[in-house]
Amino acid sequence: MKKITGTLLLLFGMSAFGQSKEDSVQFRKISTEILNNGKGYNELRELTKTIGNRLSGSEAYEKSVQWAAQKLRDAGADKVWLQEVMIPVWVRGKESLQIKTSNGKWKSVKMLSLGNSEGTGGKDLSGEIIMVKSLEEYDRLPAEKVKDKIVFFNYPFSQENVQTFISYRDANPYRRTAASLTAKKGGKFAIVRSLSSAFDDVPHTGNMRYDESISKIPAITIGNTSADELEAVLKNQKVTAKLNSNCGMKGEKLSHSVIGEITGKKDQNIIVVGGHLDSWDVGEGAHDDGAGIVQSIEVLRTFKKLGIQNNHTIRAVCFANEENGTKGGKQYGKMVKENNEKHIFAIESDAGGFSPRGISLEMNEPQRNQIKSWVHLFLPYGVYNFEGKYSGSDIAPLHEMGVPTAELVPDPQRYFDIHHTEEDTFEKVSRRELLLGSTVMTQLIYMIDKNW
Amino acid sequence: MKKITGTLLLLFGMSAFGQSKEDSVQFRKISTEILNNGKGYNELRELTKTIGNRLSGSEAYEKSVQWAAQKLRDAGADKVWLQEVMIPVWVRGKESLQIKTSNGKWKSVKMLSLGNSEGTGGKDLSGEIIMVKSLEEYDRLPAEKVKDKIVFFNYPFSQENVQTFISYRDANPYRRTAASLTAKKGGKFAIVRSLSSAFDDVPHTGNMRYDESISKIPAITIGNTSADELEAVLKNQKVTAKLNSNCGMKGEKLSHSVIGEITGKKDQNIIVVGGHLDSWDVGEGAHDDGAGIVQSIEVLRTFKKLGIQNNHTIRAVCFANEENGTKGGKQYGKMVKENNEKHIFAIESDAGGFSPRGISLEMNEPQRNQIKSWVHLFLPYGVYNFEGKYSGSDIAPLHEMGVPTAELVPDPQRYFDIHHTEEDTFEKVSRRELLLGSTVMTQLIYMIDKNW
Repeated sequence: MKKITGTLLLLFGMSAFGQSKEDSVQFRKISTEILNNGKGYNELRELTKTIGNRLSGSEAYEKSVQWAAQKLRDAGADKVWLQEVMIPVWVRGKESLQIKTSNGKWKSVKMLSLGNSEGTGGKDLSGEIIMVKSLEEYDRLPAEKVKDKIVFFNYPFSQENVQTFISYRDANPYRRTAASLTAKKGGKFAIVRSLSSAFDDVPHTGNMRYDESISKIPAITIGNTSADELEAVLKNQKVTAKLNSNCGMKGEKLSHSVIGEITGKKDQNIIVVGGHLDSWDVGEGAHDDGAGIVQSIEVLRTFKKLGIQNNHTIRAVCFANEENGTKGGKQYGKMVKENNEKHIFAIESDAGGFSPRGISLEMNEPQRNQIKSWVHLFLPYGVYNFEGKYSGSDIAPLHEMGVPTAELVPDPQRYFDIHHTEEDTFEKVSRRELLLGSTVMTQLIYMIDKNW
Repeated sequence: MKKITGTLLLLFGMSAFGQSKEDSVQFRKISTEILNNGKGYNELRELTKTIGNRLSGSEAYEKSVQWAAQKLRDAGADKVWLQEVMIPVWVRGKESLQIKTSNGKWKSVKMLSLGNSEGTGGKDLSGEIIMVKSLEEYDRLPAEKVKDKIVFFNYPFSQENVQTFISYRDANPYRRTAASLTAKKGGKFAIVRSLSSAFDDVPHTGNMRYDESISKIPAITIGNTSADELEAVLKNQKVTAKLNSNCGMKGEKLSHSVIGEITGKKDQNIIVVGGHLDSWDVGEGAHDDGAGIVQSIEVLRTFKKLGIQNNHTIRAVCFANEENGTKGGKQYGKMVKENNEKHIFAIESDAGGFSPRGISLEMNEPQRNQIKSWVHLFLPYGVYNFEGKYSGSDIAPLHEMGVPTAELVPDPQRYFDIHHTEEDTFEKVSRRELLLGSTVMTQLIYMIDKNW
């Protein structure tokens, strides 16, 4: 009996070993194909250089919809379609900020209105600046000290977290809530120090939200250098600011997410790989999230190119409107529910096209553990970290329906130097780093498709 | 008895746990100090922007010697000195390459003479180009086919290795041996496709060596785009090349490595952390190896700043002449032998200032295993890979004497895009990535100093 058990174990072990060996060969085929022949980098050049930034509702976004559909067809998708979605339209327009210190001269400061913010309607809006270093300090300020003032929320992005997303989440409430907090105490507008890890003067825009019960006043952001200078001058001088801006919400519009799929050979269960097609209206949206788009398309292309027979349907989804509404993700979730589609897994790439280091897993423990048991296959590709328990916002609606979701975890050191800025350009993307991300996504989808 | 053993195990376990907890707190202190207050990035800006590239023997190199000594003093080194070393002097001078196809017109091609190559003495040297794709193909060519020709070694840098250093080592023999191989069969000079992972036209210089028994003919390199174009045109046309260059060896010169140390509290055993101060004569030597220099200085500064009482003497060594002779490393090894200094560990950072991923360990198994047992401490800093078994060339003489040696392993995806080129500039270095490298070096030195 002992001997038989031993033999069985041996056979089982050998079978598992054989399986692992076969997977490791397939992993290598995938990486060789993508590193040698991947099209993602050149596609990203096209998207960023011929279309550029592409905020939801803009003409550029609509061009990117047609572009993505064509790239999915080129990749060999069996079916490509546009999914209708109503998206909010926010327009920046012209904007300027000037400040005046005790020398009496107005000086221009580089700035951006925060996304979704209302502007000044093209009129000058001015007042004295008061500075707070934290939300706690602001909370302690009596309303009469804020009334008719401009509040400068001077909370720095922490440099000391190795995981920069921790610093981002930590500083995020400032960007999100500064306007309504200022309005509640009668202030005129809010200036927020950018959520930026760079020591430069580049302002980082991004989403803000209004408390609907309070008047909607403008919120703008300035870069770290300008914030440092403003902080220094506020120590011993009265500073007046003057804002003139035209931004604001311009209603809703019919737009589209773009979907391409390769049909499953065994069943109609669906695996999603995705990113978001929209970007903020500055820079080129290269890392955020052109990278995720071209990586997702590369997954389909690589399955086709290598002739991998996928059991389940694999769908690349280019979500609309992640940046200022996540309407694309919500609409996709709604459609899944309505059509009663069975989704077995979804992964998003939306943290930049940097060298992959891990995969974050938002799912139950047995599922997590199964994926973690594949770590030896991923290690040669620099992927070792499966400890995260979050996933991208576009697939959050799927997660809420019980679908196991995941996110590609690239190296996070450079992302918040350029995130949501004019500096998020194609030149900041490394070909090899981007393609390694596509490689790891394809490898993971291969394993999920085979084993789930 | 069982209970006692259990208790002992528990105590031992708790003690080990307490130790580990203490180390993890110290690791965090180190990273917080460096990520918030590290000076390495600004020092690298100084080195690259005020001194620039600094080939051994150049005036710029001598300036960098004074600069490094001052930075070591500023970092709080107890002792700083220059170590004399005779180094070879190679000078590039003016150089140009032109090619002529069947249209009869000369066209300039971007090129660099390879380091240590002789030039044409300022005269035109021309002939017909023949191309080989590999050393094997060249070996099969009869001498009469090579005689009076120019040999184009068109061997591509492989894109498919995840670890780019494998591709570098694979293509390295072409750069190193092309000239003498060509001379042996009577060729006039050699053109080598650059050892480059970038899809651009930037030539990558680097060290070549002559077989002293053969005449020394020139070897030059061209970028990938030019190599692709030359390959295409050679398919159906006769191509003539004309080289004019003035480079060559100009004897030897007295120069210096720079050493700074903080004295051990317990003994005079020595731990070395280093990089090389020289660079090639193009670009700014930012990643190669200004990064290693400022990271090594940061280790000393951080020990001093945090008041860590080091048991052993910790020495930061800025080696001279790594690029074209490794005379600095050799001289350092000679001095160690002559002075009978006991070195217990040495680590070099010479693979770029990118996000650290691991530490390569060239030492015996018990030593390797001890360092590998610290992996849980390093994981929060993104360092997981201790599998490499190599270390830097400057500390190879120490290794030959039996000293355990190591090398910082940063992410390797971008290095060979810019290595040895005009593109290796400060702008290519990320502050956070560079400082994380310093962090991991400091953490490792802390552990070695405490436990060895």
